[in-house]
Amino acid sequence: MQPAQTGTMNHGYDFPRQIQFANQEEKQEFSKFPTKTGRRSLSRSISQSSTDSYSSAASYTDSSDDETSPREKSQVNSKGSSDFCVKNIKQAEFGRREIEIAEQDMSALISLRKRAQGEKPLAGAKVVGCTHITAQTAVLIETLVALGAQCRWTACNIYSTQNEVAAALAESGVSVFAWKGESEDDFWWCIDRCVNMEGWQANMILDDGGDLTHWVYKKYPSVFKKVRGIVEESVTGVHRLYQLSKAGKLCVPAMNVNDSVTKQKFDNLYCCRESILDGLKRTTDVMFGGKQVVVCGYGEVGKGCCSALKALGAIVCVTEIDPICALQACMDGFRVLKLNEVVRQMDMIITCTGNKNVVTREHLDRMKNGCIVCNMGHSNTEIDVASLRTPELTWERVRSQVDHVIWPDGKRVILLAEGRLLNLSCSTVPSFVLSITATTQALALIELYNAPESRYKQDVYLLPKKMDEYVASLHLPNFDAHLTELSDEQAKYMGLNKNGPFKPNYYRY
Amino acid sequence: MQPAQTGTMNHGYDFPRQIQFANQEEKQEFSKFPTKTGRRSLSRSISQSSTDSYSSAASYTDSSDDETSPREKSQVNSKGSSDFCVKNIKQAEFGRREIEIAEQDMSALISLRKRAQGEKPLAGAKVVGCTHITAQTAVLIETLVALGAQCRWTACNIYSTQNEVAAALAESGVSVFAWKGESEDDFWWCIDRCVNMEGWQANMILDDGGDLTHWVYKKYPSVFKKVRGIVEESVTGVHRLYQLSKAGKLCVPAMNVNDSVTKQKFDNLYCCRESILDGLKRTTDVMFGGKQVVVCGYGEVGKGCCSALKALGAIVCVTEIDPICALQACMDGFRVLKLNEVVRQMDMIITCTGNKNVVTREHLDRMKNGCIVCNMGHSNTEIDVASLRTPELTWERVRSQVDHVIWPDGKRVILLAEGRLLNLSCSTVPSFVLSITATTQALALIELYNAPESRYKQDVYLLPKKMDEYVASLHLPNFDAHLTELSDEQAKYMGLNKNGPFKPNYYRY
Amino acid sequence: MQPAQTGTMNHGYDFPRQIQFANQEEKQEFSKFPTKTGRRSLSRSISQSSTDSYSSAASYTDSSDDETSPREKSQVNSKGSSDFCVKNIKQAEFGRREIEIAEQDMSALISLRKRAQGEKPLAGAKVVGCTHITAQTAVLIETLVALGAQCRWTACNIYSTQNEVAAALAESGVSVFAWKGESEDDFWWCIDRCVNMEGWQANMILDDGGDLTHWVYKKYPSVFKKVRGIVEESVTGVHRLYQLSKAGKLCVPAMNVNDSVTKQKFDNLYCCRESILDGLKRTTDVMFGGKQVVVCGYGEVGKGCCSALKALGAIVCVTEIDPICALQACMDGFRVLKLNEVVRQMDMIITCTGNKNVVTREHLDRMKNGCIVCNMGHSNTEIDVASLRTPELTWERVRSQVDHVIWPDGKRVILLAEGRLLNLSCSTVPSFVLSITATTQALALIELYNAPESRYKQDVYLLPKKMDEYVASLHLPNFDAHLTELSDEQAKYMGLNKNGPFKPNYYRY
Amino acid sequence: MQPAQTGTMNHGYDFPRQIQFANQEEKQEFSKFPTKTGRRSLSRSISQSSTDSYSSAASYTDSSDDETSPREKSQVNSKGSSDFCVKNIKQAEFGRREIEIAEQDMSALISLRKRAQGEKPLAGAKVVGCTHITAQTAVLIETLVALGAQCRWTACNIYSTQNEVAAALAESGVSVFAWKGESEDDFWWCIDRCVNMEGWQANMILDDGGDLTHWVYKKYPSVFKKVRGIVEESVTGVHRLYQLSKAGKLCVPAMNVNDSVTKQKFDNLYCCRESILDGLKRTTDVMFGGKQVVVCGYGEVGKGCCSALKALGAIVCVTEIDPICALQACMDGFRVLKLNEVVRQMDMIITCTGNKNVVTREHLDRMKNGCIVCNMGHSNTEIDVASLRTPELTWERVRSQVDHVIWPDGKRVILLAEGRLLNLSCSTVPSFVLSITATTQALALIELYNAPESRYKQDVYLLPKKMDEYVASLHLPNFDAHLTELSDEQAKYMGLNKNGPFKPNYYRY
Repeated sequence: MQPAQTGTMNHGYDFPRQIQFANQEEKQEFSKFPTKTGRRSLSRSISQSSTDSYSSAASYTDSSDDETSPREKSQVNSKGSSDFCVKNIKQAEFGRREIEIAEQDMSALISLRKRAQGEKPLAGAKVVGCTHITAQTAVLIETLVALGAQCRWTACNIYSTQNEVAAALAESGVSVFAWKGESEDDFWWCIDRCVNMEGWQANMILDDGGDLTHWVYKKYPSVFKKVRGIVEESVTGVHRLYQLSKAGKLCVPAMNVNDSVTKQKFDNLYCCRESILDGLKRTTDVMFGGKQVVVCGYGEVGKGCCSALKALGAIVCVTEIDPICALQACMDGFRVLKLNEVVRQMDMIITCTGNKNVVTREHLDRMKNGCIVCNMGHSNTEIDVASLRTPELTWERVRSQVDHVIWPDGKRVILLAEGRLLNLSCSTVPSFVLSITATTQALALIELYNAPESRYKQDVYLLPKKMDEYVASLHLPNFDAHLTELSDEQAKYMGLNKNGPFKPNYYRY
Repeated sequence: MQPAQTGTMNHGYDFPRQIQFANQEEKQEFSKFPTKTGRRSLSRSISQSSTDSYSSAASYTDSSDDETSPREKSQVNSKGSSDFCVKNIKQAEFGRREIEIAEQDMSALISLRKRAQGEKPLAGAKVVGCTHITAQTAVLIETLVALGAQCRWTACNIYSTQNEVAAALAESGVSVFAWKGESEDDFWWCIDRCVNMEGWQANMILDDGGDLTHWVYKKYPSVFKKVRGIVEESVTGVHRLYQLSKAGKLCVPAMNVNDSVTKQKFDNLYCCRESILDGLKRTTDVMFGGKQVVVCGYGEVGKGCCSALKALGAIVCVTEIDPICALQACMDGFRVLKLNEVVRQMDMIITCTGNKNVVTREHLDRMKNGCIVCNMGHSNTEIDVASLRTPELTWERVRSQVDHVIWPDGKRVILLAEGRLLNLSCSTVPSFVLSITATTQALALIELYNAPESRYKQDVYLLPKKMDEYVASLHLPNFDAHLTELSDEQAKYMGLNKNGPFKPNYYRY
Repeated sequence: MQPAQTGTMNHGYDFPRQIQFANQEEKQEFSKFPTKTGRRSLSRSISQSSTDSYSSAASYTDSSDDETSPREKSQVNSKGSSDFCVKNIKQAEFGRREIEIAEQDMSALISLRKRAQGEKPLAGAKVVGCTHITAQTAVLIETLVALGAQCRWTACNIYSTQNEVAAALAESGVSVFAWKGESEDDFWWCIDRCVNMEGWQANMILDDGGDLTHWVYKKYPSVFKKVRGIVEESVTGVHRLYQLSKAGKLCVPAMNVNDSVTKQKFDNLYCCRESILDGLKRTTDVMFGGKQVVVCGYGEVGKGCCSALKALGAIVCVTEIDPICALQACMDGFRVLKLNEVVRQMDMIITCTGNKNVVTREHLDRMKNGCIVCNMGHSNTEIDVASLRTPELTWERVRSQVDHVIWPDGKRVILLAEGRLLNLSCSTVPSFVLSITATTQALALIELYNAPESRYKQDVYLLPKKMDEYVASLHLPNFDAHLTELSDEQAKYMGLNKNGPFKPNYYRY
Repeated sequence: MQPAQTGTMNHGYDFPRQIQFANQEEKQEFSKFPTKTGRRSLSRSISQSSTDSYSSAASYTDSSDDETSPREKSQVNSKGSSDFCVKNIKQAEFGRREIEIAEQDMSALISLRKRAQGEKPLAGAKVVGCTHITAQTAVLIETLVALGAQCRWTACNIYSTQNEVAAALAESGVSVFAWKGESEDDFWWCIDRCVNMEGWQANMILDDGGDLTHWVYKKYPSVFKKVRGIVEESVTGVHRLYQLSKAGKLCVPAMNVNDSVTKQKFDNLYCCRESILDGLKRTTDVMFGGKQVVVCGYGEVGKGCCSALKALGAIVCVTEIDPICALQACMDGFRVLKLNEVVRQMDMIITCTGNKNVVTREHLDRMKNGCIVCNMGHSNTEIDVASLRTPELTWERVRSQVDHVIWPDGKRVILLAEGRLLNLSCSTVPSFVLSITATTQALALIELYNAPESRYKQDVYLLPKKMDEYVASLHLPNFDAHLTELSDEQAKYMGLNKNGPFKPNYYRY
């Protein structure tokens, strides 16, 4: 059992770090933060830490690892450098293969490398980065390097590092400080090693969660002032930037890449459409045909889940609080009902609300024998799992991530991932989805680094729609898709530039 | 051939009226107007004039009508009033039945009547209205009356009036000035009769297209200044209001109901999903299974068309200019290709772009025998129909709205509705969809009429999201949908008011 | 009430003709006949008599027709022949155009003409035929002529003849005896004229319903004995042939084309998938999204209806008596419930059972206001319409084929086509579907006419699977489908002939 | 690499056992055997041996097992019996839990236990069984015991035994002789121990593959003659029975349960619809949206695969040799093309033909980089994997069941399960599907054991349709489905017995 694992995803609020929350109110602030979408995408990027043995090369090597702390080891890569700290530099070859496999589905980044390489748009950029260290982020980092940047990197999460990948990066010359299973002290030590380098001063920050940004802001204010731009991917980090900005303390332009259209659609609608089936199958081998399912919440996540389940023959109904989303559910062919009206007859209950205590003990008491309960929403608040930790109920761990909670009368409820995110814990995220985010991050860095000073003030910016469109266009070749070009006449008729942007900002897609 | 018919839909720019366009530039302005969504919804509201004999009661009575102009007739309703001008007051009974049938699918308006009737929120309101005169708008008008308003009404289109419905309205006491087949002179005469009433001065305007608004603005400036609010439904009308506002001449708050979420989704995505199949079947009896179809444009309209056609077994591909929409098409399972790559092998070609000359003569020359070409987009510009009016091609009208265009080698292309909107010409719009627009209009009137003076300035406003949600909630009972309510704890956790609004303004649904 | 109207479709058993039923028991025999599939396909072929004004050219000319009986007219075609009897030979040109349009979707027949024309496989064949006289059957008849046959033709139904098409056939030299609105006496007179021709003796029979066959059997036994083969399309006709065979009186080999795989799948699953939406839209303009629908019966017809309705956003449940079909419904994502459990909340009720009194007065009493009730099954027995003919209920005909039945409390139930087949009455059948049946008929004639005497005994035969496959293969070019050929090695491995048949007889497809 | 694994599934023909094939011709006979359906279902039942660590309890215990042969161990269960031979009787508790979990999805068997228990319809039956030994078959065996039978059991496959389950069965008193990893000698030893029991003589045989049947037939002819009935599940076994029958050597009635409707539909259409996505995800984490896929073969297996892939957003085309199936593919919305026309552009290639060398080296040479190739058909013949074992190609095993085959130019083709059945190797089969087969087997035993002698001759019988319907009805409660009952009037009208059977034998479902 890994109770801390969810915590690791949403470290902003799930385990205490002094720098993040000055006090309890600030923490509550985060808890109130409204858009589930945001939180999801934060946690999304860690999905490589899935426990599924298929999806990670970690299994090949981790088991034989020694227990010495990397901080105490003295390691040198084949070029003689020791400006890094990873678990085991010898795993570099394994990591390289994982990176190569990831590259196959991240051809947008590769094509970005090729298009921009001649001009080296990041020449002179000194980027400090703090993200999950996975094969996919390695492709991003190596793209930045190919575009001219110098990079120093650390992990945004104490569990999510793929050690082999970190080794491969270190071997290739990136100064990376990260390993799987850092202590909290290690975590900050790594961030500090990343920033605090004699004779080298960062001028760009790429962050996921805001910890690096705040470390620089607090500890190295003089560095912070000279940074040209910050690129932030997560809801939590974006939220912290807006707070800084509101308080008048953000002296650097920052780019919010979390809210780009492509990222949102892929991280939510499309990705959940793919992963809901996968997560359920891997954990329970359940047959979908004819199963009665209630999906709580019909936002993008719920829409993706409903679409996939219905397509495979499940009989799906929906709960909603928002009448507009409810009307959409109706028109899409789903009954909209209250959970307590249907809970007795359901075979599966899936939460996608971003809210808390959507499934209560009372609901759980009324479920039928064999009902599967899981969460696709965010964090681990949607299902009141704590309410099941009572003496009269027996917990039986039947597989990894699968508990049978047994009532005195023998009724079993099948709880997945202890109410944590199913698709994070029990399925994987395709490299293609991560490619979209990574490409967006690279473009945002290029934009901020090269923009004339007047273009961006000391504020938080959304990605210009044209760049959003550009990210999309870089991913079309994966589908062998052929875009149509506007003729001059048509562009004039529509009042559009032939190269976009093609839609007004409020367009809903 | 009915070249004027399209014109009648988009009268704002399709046939000349002095008041509308001061000069050619202004007309060009309109032509450049970018959002197809808008234009669609403009034209959408005329769909009651469908030629389909099933869907209109008109056929029962029109054929026996005399040819005397209504302006020359002297008619009195059963209560002795003659303050109206319709084709034939004796058709009132037929019209009443049509209204009653429409009421069955517009229960949101009926429930609005009931909820608000006690307090008569429109008591004292004197509303002049200019819309299509159909069974569905009659339900709206009679709702306004039930809420306390006095109404005078005229038609926004010279062809779209259902004479029986106008008669029923006149019989029930509404001063209505409209008939099917007005001349342009009649059109303005009716508007004037509607506004220019001794001892009665309008204080609210409900408009569809902006003609009434501009008539009052130009001819009765003193009335205009005292109007409390304008509610405008169409893109064209909204555009004209923005122009007025920009020019500093809008001295009245106006509500743009065209861009509400519910209206947009229903007028485009859901409505086209329903009507594309209907329009094609009624005109061609074509079998969908296995047919190769290209849909040009993957906006909401294209999404609706693709979804329905794929569901019925057609093999669909898509053309797009916007890479984001193209990426969505890919993920939704459609090849994205250029029209000239696929045109030879297609069985059907459907335009949904809002652009012009998307299907050119060159494309038409390369289509295979029996290819069906139609337009779901807007106006009649998407298919270059004019290019088919050449001597070597033979036109054969095989059914109403269906032409075979025959090449010298015998190849036939099947052109529907002469390139005008298929679902406008050849299918119907469910009353339920129109109910959403009508309810929004009624709420906008109530809001503007009752709002404290300070709330709205002399500008054009979008419907508050909360009212959008309210419109949706009024339509949920049609689906027997049961909304979930937030608990206090949940509302606090989400930072939401329990009664909404539930989403930020930028939420994409 | 028009009890005879269905009868007109299935004249074999629905209105009295002495020759058909010796007594009431025999008629009951027919009524007990179990397979709905069969009956459906019988009635299917009349769908050209749809009332939809779009789908038939009849409207162009019929209204101006005089009332003189064709039997009293003296008509001559342009070649001087008067060996025919149609409504008006002058309508030939209109009919020719309808035939040409039909040919476009019946390219399998055209290609059969081309492939077999050189050898004239029907040279010497003298075919008497009795089918619906429509554009599609005209394509069949002219194909037979092109293959060498001499044809004399009559109608199997007193209402279904397209007069223009009959005229076109007569003009082209086929001796056709048929018009729309024959009396029963006319009906038998036409059959007799078709058979009883001085100096010409039929050697092949193509029948739809068995009336022609029985007329020849009874009246011209000497002709009957010399016939080389009978091809019968309808369930009723096939049933009568089996009875004859059982009684030892069938002295001619007969081919049952009703039960071929392609015909069955197209006449039921695929055709209903297309027509259920069409029939509902044309009559009621109903919106499908979010509607609650119960489909009674999950055979091929029910499967087609459910698939289409679900795809357009309806929420569908199913009733079944057969546990295997019920299990399929479950796996396909439909709740299986009893009608009385769900009848109160349904927006639409569709019968597809082939049974009687599936929807009873008791069900009708419990339906909600506005509920639509219709029948896709067979005949008019599934809904107990007679039970609605009681004084306390008011019937209101609101459109062609649409009745509102009004309860004393104002509740309206919307009954379509008075419980007769919806897709027969209110939608059309694509020519492509009819092409499959017609091609099968043509091949069956060729097979019986050319087979060595030993191949077929005096019995009723199913179409050899290889011919069924051949019919399918002739229709693949419509879809530009490319079949794969077995290699020698593969054919040997599978134990198959490279040219088929590819499946055992019991294969379920 | 486990080249023998497929062999283990289809042991009847994939590795030599003297008793099975007298000579090479007989083996060839089997190889020619045409219906893939049959072979699939044979192999299907072994799916519990999936390598997926989630789906098998084996992982808990196997690794710690000692290497002593069970034949050399002396084990006693808690009741003192030693009449069994399993890996380790101490694992019984683990196995019991697995059996209990399986029971939850096999409620039809449980309900059969309850319905038939009072009368003990198998009292006196002495059943020898030879099947895969899994949790699901344990539920079957214990049902037989509950119905009165005495059972002795052995494994039909040397690899597929779940040792814990075998232990649990032995503990509960069933004489079971089976363990995972038997040698061929062990295999026959176990069968013999099962049959050859002093003072106990089998009177019923339940077989999967025919090995047990043939052992009894050859070695114990006197026992064979007194057997009351044989129930055989697999295509191979059924084929061998037909051969015996044809040779006049079958002196016992046998029941072919392989070809029952419910089993066929579930083992093929529905099961593949579920498992194709699962198998692909678990091995490759591939994203389905927008992927171009060709499915070779549009039988039930292909239909299931296509339906699922299309539903998740893949763009699917089909290859077919049979024009009828090809026409179905067209109507279902899939292009039908030849593999060599499309192979270059495909992202995935899935074989479902039952044929050999469908994907050749030539095809593999033309695939694009990253193309995934897998087999859902049968055996390992569909993809010519052997052709890839050439020196210029590099094989890289990247995960369990996943090989990258690398061309000299760097192109990688991703081969799953070395061309063996994907869903067997890389996904699981829901207990519900296995429940249908097991229930059918139990009913077939009851029928043969209790039938009056005259009912069944010495021949191979299909399950009576009524029993097929009964199996289905026992599974409806899983879906909370409510069957409708025919009224007397309706039953009479349809000519049906109210309790079924409801369809003629040739009905296609």
